Amino acid sequence: MRGKYREIQEKIYEYFHARPELQTPLEISKDEHRELCWRQMYGLIKEAGIRPLKYVVEDPGKYFAIVEAAGAVDISLGIKLGVQYSLWGGSVINLGTKKHKDKYFEGIDSLDYPGCFAMTELHQGSNVQGLQTVATFDPITDEFIINTPSDGAIKWWIGNAAVHGKFASVFAKLMLPAQDAKGVSDMGVHAFIVPLRDLKTHQELPGIEIHDCGHKYTSSLPTINKRFAATLGELVGGRVSLASSSTSILKVANAIAIRYSLLRQQFGPPNQPEVSILDYQSQQHKLMPMLASTYAFHFATSYLVEIYSQMKTTHAEQLVGDVHGLSAGLKAYVTSYTAKSLSVCREACGGHGYAAVNRFGILRNDHDIFQTFEGDNTVLLQQVAADLLKQYKQKFQGGTLAVTWNYLRESMNTYLSQPNPVTARWEGVEHLRDPKFQLDAFRYRTSRLLQSAAVRLRKHSKTLGGFGAWNRCLNHLLTLAESHIESVILAKFIETVEKCPDASTRAALKLVCDLYALNQIWNDIGTYRNVDYVAPNKAKAIHKQTDYLSFQVRNIAKELVDAFDLPDHVTRAPIAMQSEAYAQYTHFVGF
Amino acid sequence: MRGKYREIQEKIYEYFHARPELQTPLEISKDEHRELCWRQMYGLIKEAGIRPLKYVVEDPGKYFAIVEAAGAVDISLGIKLGVQYSLWGGSVINLGTKKHKDKYFEGIDSLDYPGCFAMTELHQGSNVQGLQTVATFDPITDEFIINTPSDGAIKWWIGNAAVHGKFASVFAKLMLPAQDAKGVSDMGVHAFIVPLRDLKTHQELPGIEIHDCGHKYTSSLPTINKRFAATLGELVGGRVSLASSSTSILKVANAIAIRYSLLRQQFGPPNQPEVSILDYQSQQHKLMPMLASTYAFHFATSYLVEIYSQMKTTHAEQLVGDVHGLSAGLKAYVTSYTAKSLSVCREACGGHGYAAVNRFGILRNDHDIFQTFEGDNTVLLQQVAADLLKQYKQKFQGGTLAVTWNYLRESMNTYLSQPNPVTARWEGVEHLRDPKFQLDAFRYRTSRLLQSAAVRLRKHSKTLGGFGAWNRCLNHLLTLAESHIESVILAKFIETVEKCPDASTRAALKLVCDLYALNQIWNDIGTYRNVDYVAPNKAKAIHKQTDYLSFQVRNIAKELVDAFDLPDHVTRAPIAMQSEAYAQYTHFVGF
Repeated sequence: MRGKYREIQEKIYEYFHARPELQTPLEISKDEHRELCWRQMYGLIKEAGIRPLKYVVEDPGKYFAIVEAAGAVDISLGIKLGVQYSLWGGSVINLGTKKHKDKYFEGIDSLDYPGCFAMTELHQGSNVQGLQTVATFDPITDEFIINTPSDGAIKWWIGNAAVHGKFASVFAKLMLPAQDAKGVSDMGVHAFIVPLRDLKTHQELPGIEIHDCGHKYTSSLPTINKRFAATLGELVGGRVSLASSSTSILKVANAIAIRYSLLRQQFGPPNQPEVSILDYQSQQHKLMPMLASTYAFHFATSYLVEIYSQMKTTHAEQLVGDVHGLSAGLKAYVTSYTAKSLSVCREACGGHGYAAVNRFGILRNDHDIFQTFEGDNTVLLQQVAADLLKQYKQKFQGGTLAVTWNYLRESMNTYLSQPNPVTARWEGVEHLRDPKFQLDAFRYRTSRLLQSAAVRLRKHSKTLGGFGAWNRCLNHLLTLAESHIESVILAKFIETVEKCPDASTRAALKLVCDLYALNQIWNDIGTYRNVDYVAPNKAKAIHKQTDYLSFQVRNIAKELVDAFDLPDHVTRAPIAMQSEAYAQYTHFVGF
Repeated sequence: MRGKYREIQEKIYEYFHARPELQTPLEISKDEHRELCWRQMYGLIKEAGIRPLKYVVEDPGKYFAIVEAAGAVDISLGIKLGVQYSLWGGSVINLGTKKHKDKYFEGIDSLDYPGCFAMTELHQGSNVQGLQTVATFDPITDEFIINTPSDGAIKWWIGNAAVHGKFASVFAKLMLPAQDAKGVSDMGVHAFIVPLRDLKTHQELPGIEIHDCGHKYTSSLPTINKRFAATLGELVGGRVSLASSSTSILKVANAIAIRYSLLRQQFGPPNQPEVSILDYQSQQHKLMPMLASTYAFHFATSYLVEIYSQMKTTHAEQLVGDVHGLSAGLKAYVTSYTAKSLSVCREACGGHGYAAVNRFGILRNDHDIFQTFEGDNTVLLQQVAADLLKQYKQKFQGGTLAVTWNYLRESMNTYLSQPNPVTARWEGVEHLRDPKFQLDAFRYRTSRLLQSAAVRLRKHSKTLGGFGAWNRCLNHLLTLAESHIESVILAKFIETVEKCPDASTRAALKLVCDLYALNQIWNDIGTYRNVDYVAPNKAKAIHKQTDYLSFQVRNIAKELVDAFDLPDHVTRAPIAMQSEAYAQYTHFVGF
């Protein structure tokens, strides 16, 4: 599963494995953790010789693989790399001119110029156009004066600012002198490189005031609305990285929870040995659909990385819509799912899951912010819904659709008719496990939600206006966006299964894919029943098959987890060690 | 909402409010936190003069109110009190003889005898009968020899043991001399008071080896199976306390998330001011059904506290079944719900929700273990299901039912018939908001799940045996248990609304209750549709009404939160301050 960037990931794992002093201890103060995180990054760049900014430009997939592997060492390190290279570096590369790149590229890549991405303000996050910081051009001195006019405009959550940053890309409303009555003209939000600290003494420069936002090192790149997206569009790389890192964190959690569930025994039939807790239907129900989703996300995010890299290296215009929509959607969908799953994994491992050394708590706390930064998930899903509605309109106008959305062209026609009352009753296993049935069901749902959303929006906008109508349909639109993302994920999974060259691997993946598909259909069985897409007997058969597939996937769960290729020194949790887990645990405690 | 123990809770809040040095700081090492937590408890007992053990016996409701208020100061303090008074104290009171009580009661109450509850072992948690620690009676010395025969039998997660405990109630298999060939007889698990440390020097006593399980101070009282329950039954008090403390934590989280959502503004109609984020349908969808559940849990857990107190003070035998079942069910249901909701609240508050000072992270980390200790939730729900099946059998044998289960008597008869195809189509608001419809729907679901579970278990036990059949139906049984608990919660909520003497409060509560009921029905609409209990038009009407009620509850959300009666020095999060929230926040950061 590790794919073509395995080599550089091994290099990172080995670098940290060989340097136990760079491992983050369980108990560490915020200030010490910041220093350690800096030393980890410094070692990676200066000692292990990794040069991420080069890959940001030339091979983004490799860059994401670096961030992902660093995140497995400590999520904070992955985030700190993201701030330095995706956000600060990315803003210079993508928004800067040749002059900026010539001046800053090497210093950013070598860590001589640590920097920040200063967009979010205390009062403004998602609504970037509402930023209050002002950049006024002074024609006399030929300078830009960057000003924070009120407390609400204080730049907030600026990763790398509190201690290490030398520069920041500051986002501010540009004011230019104008000939009209007001004398100035608001040119909208632009980015400015602002020096924060002296390069030699590291003293804060005059006019700069920096305070620490407090516990939880973080950085936040909020959602970008459409007009602004024209400027900042290149920064979707951060979302691609988050979707893929989140999947990677989900893999680590899966590996720990499933390996421990195979080891742990509790209760059993009378006068017989206790059974592994993974033999309980309830434990399978918690963990096996999650394992299936992890596989599904792996293939979907790998695809996203691939088309993003194509877009960046070939500058293929036709990929832009796809990459934007899919990165917003997958970032939101995957990070929300992972956040919930980390809690499920903890709880599925009982008391031992609660021990800090077994990592769920730390993973969850560090991953949590993935749902908010680089675009709040609820806001990002609205972008996806808005895109879908745009495509829907274009369909009726005969325009071209982005590749990922393409299925809507035919599905709309097929699915606007009434569901077929005969197939609605089919309940045979062969039918339920037919990818055509599964994909049709997913796409039917999306098409129906899209069509009804369009109708409702049109109706409500007459009385409520655009903003009011959108808000009145908001839950509907969010469901639509999720449904679309699920359709894309399933299509990619089915494609992967069909392409798999090895017969027994293909059979295993098919099991996992079927579990993913049927579990999702069952989760939303109400919708399918409401339109009689699925008859009661079929609903029951889908439920039964989901339980059965969970049981079958459980029988190959060990191998499915092994395929993540995560050695014990990466998973690290004593309860998940592949030999003598309990002994490692008692040893850790001091017995 | 604070009820009859408001006075003692105020006293606790005020005590800590006046002693800022006892406030837990955001950054604190494990060892310092243990010491601080001890000092907090010590102050509460020795300075504020609270004597909890007295209330454990005489007025359990008051005891729970103390633990709840202490938990609002720091959840760790609530848990440490629980270990000392419910677990260590409770085991002496409930399992000890007069001799034990005379010797230990005063020392436990005054904190001179801090103690532990040593049940869980490294390899054994939920399966208490599988404990490996052995107590052998030596008739020569007239002593019990308590032995840990293997690493797997090491007592694990023993709260209060690492630093402060002087004694422990140790659970061990009692071996007595016997006349038969083996020479010893296994008498099952019993509790033994074992001195751990010297009362004066605090040195570990000979033969005792204590190590620290590591980060996350915790204690674990696992599920008790039926035979063992006869001995340990009195300890259900811990579960009552957890259900009520969990509701209290949910209130704090609700208050912070809702107050901030009223304050925070983001986006808005063109050329108009930005709107409060609580005006977004998506935010209402996240927070309003949660607020309704919080109210529902408040009334249900208050009722549980009431019948538990009755049982303890009047020794009314007929309440035992009710209290056992309901405490297991509510503890599992409420703590799982709160755990999920704390994540939803954090995410709903975006970046500021992620700041440690705004408390969601700490609340979530500390509350998390509520799902596992004093009985793993998945195991507890199985107890509820087993109880229901027992009642089901008794019904056919004409026996009496426990009060809480009583509805099953009539509902079984009514609901085993086909759903009424006429009422299945009724979609009028008056009908949907009729408590009779709502309660019937909840109970119909429970009865149907119960009846089908009984049939399936009978069928599978022929081929799989009892253990195998139970496991084959496990997900079904867990759903049954949850459905039953929801039925009990709704019935209690409806009763509270009907009894409410003030007309406008009653109207407000009715809104909240309707939202709770319809949201639950909508969440499981698939089940209702599958049996045509609800026709498609009605399903749609329920969905619409749920959105609309969320909107209506939003309009009184401030008042509903104010009714929790949580002053700013208890909620503490700067973003939730009732005046100048942003200013407090910037002040905290240092501007």
